[in-house]
Amino acid sequence: MTDEATAFAPGHVTAFFAPYPHDDPAVAGSRGAGLALSDGVEVTVRPTGSIEDGGRIFLDGTPTEMAAVTGVLGSLDPDSREGDCESGGLPADVDVRTDLPVGAGFGVSGAAALATALAANDAFDLARSENELVRAAHVAEVEAGTGLGDVVAQFRGGLPIRLEPGAPGHGEFDGLPARPRVEYVTFGELSTEAVLGGDLDPVRTAGEAALTRLRRRPTVDELLAAAREFAEDAGLLVPAVAEAVEAAEAEGSRASMAMLGRTAFALGTGLSDAGYDATPCTVHPTGATLVGLGGP
Amino acid sequence: MTDEATAFAPGHVTAFFAPYPHDDPAVAGSRGAGLALSDGVEVTVRPTGSIEDGGRIFLDGTPTEMAAVTGVLGSLDPDSREGDCESGGLPADVDVRTDLPVGAGFGVSGAAALATALAANDAFDLARSENELVRAAHVAEVEAGTGLGDVVAQFRGGLPIRLEPGAPGHGEFDGLPARPRVEYVTFGELSTEAVLGGDLDPVRTAGEAALTRLRRRPTVDELLAAAREFAEDAGLLVPAVAEAVEAAEAEGSRASMAMLGRTAFALGTGLSDAGYDATPCTVHPTGATLVGLGGP
Repeated sequence: MTDEATAFAPGHVTAFFAPYPHDDPAVAGSRGAGLALSDGVEVTVRPTGSIEDGGRIFLDGTPTEMAAVTGVLGSLDPDSREGDCESGGLPADVDVRTDLPVGAGFGVSGAAALATALAANDAFDLARSENELVRAAHVAEVEAGTGLGDVVAQFRGGLPIRLEPGAPGHGEFDGLPARPRVEYVTFGELSTEAVLGGDLDPVRTAGEAALTRLRRRPTVDELLAAAREFAEDAGLLVPAVAEAVEAAEAEGSRASMAMLGRTAFALGTGLSDAGYDATPCTVHPTGATLVGLGGP
Repeated sequence: MTDEATAFAPGHVTAFFAPYPHDDPAVAGSRGAGLALSDGVEVTVRPTGSIEDGGRIFLDGTPTEMAAVTGVLGSLDPDSREGDCESGGLPADVDVRTDLPVGAGFGVSGAAALATALAANDAFDLARSENELVRAAHVAEVEAGTGLGDVVAQFRGGLPIRLEPGAPGHGEFDGLPARPRVEYVTFGELSTEAVLGGDLDPVRTAGEAALTRLRRRPTVDELLAAAREFAEDAGLLVPAVAEAVEAAEAEGSRASMAMLGRTAFALGTGLSDAGYDATPCTVHPTGATLVGLGGP
């Protein structure tokens, strides 16, 4: 008999990115950099008697649909063929809990998919390695069209620099050795699918320039400066966010826009100093992990 | 002016390993698997006025020599050429604090080198990336002859599987998605240098067999079973450790020997159930990180 299991994945604010779509979703991804946040997503996977009873997803108690989570339950089912999500899926309900706003640039869908993979592995004794679970979540997220680089960054934690795109075995990382305090304020949703479905060339050009800049001087200050330049050059900055970013900068803070959401984030207390009702958090050094102790 | 900075690196018990020496210390390393522990090493780097005033290393307050730490201070000095540790080094004293026994298979020297790199980067505003700092610590550890795989595992945290040897850019990882409780008991030192200087062929053969076994079924139980088989087949099991391992197994626990130390470790409470005065700890999911908050 299997028991329920719970895992946590940090939210991830992308500071800048260069998208690299690919027919193979494990190879698809993005280069770029961002911040894994102490605010994140907790997922409990509760095995049910049969697939007919299960497959329900609850977001903070309310039934919802999350394609990336459904995709993970499908691909991790030992009775399914890879990528064949129609054929069944693990017989489980999934409780997703988060204080983060959805669709606002925190990678909630990626975090939910990743935490689902970790919790399902424990609940069903699937005996998958971490790379296999991250890959399942990355593939489900790419296939859902909701993100390209959040999952691998959320697994790593800290301030990840994505040197090469893709799931484990393809992607490569560096990181910034700092743990700054961060604030954020959100003005609503922005469709990742719409942006990723548009012309990606200017985004890729601006993202590569930002990555080159950061690798030349890998510091937190430079991360934010590169993010700011990227937001302008890629043409992604939206007015409400631009106003908040400029207000935080006027207070002497580094700030930029969360990619992709109507969200401004700043180092230290720049946003609250400027009068915004901003949420404080820290960088999450660990990355996604089981909650409670696995094993004996 | 620069301030002191502090970083933590977890202890790392190697469960099994296949050594791959190489003329380039960044390429040298080992494949294998192990456990990053909540018990670890905390290092404070305190800048001094000049190199003549600094360069002292204290282990729990007592002056000591740690070649890997000295090597890190040398290679991170912006005024030094790489590998030229004679030419100076960062002007700093280093305080190493740990509850772990030294020379007993916990990778204390690697942890000290890694935490020194992270703390020195912060204290001297060196603007190095995480990969650069891990590489500096790995190279210093390999050149000191005190370890081949601890540093990269201590940076990653969790239950690291080292798929490919070497520093970031060469090494590759997977991991076990579990966070078991662990106990350990130590019976004294074992010279890593002496073992790594001997005939490595039987160790490599046993290590590769253990890695193949674990990758076939990546679970904590299999990690310990593979470790146990490795200790026997590589001819590294010492009598006092063998006795403790067997006693823990008689209590229904999985146990093996820390490579390389006169240390037995077990899952759960196997060693204390068997009457040993064992130290309990958990797996450290984060890996090495700055203590206190870097940045604003």
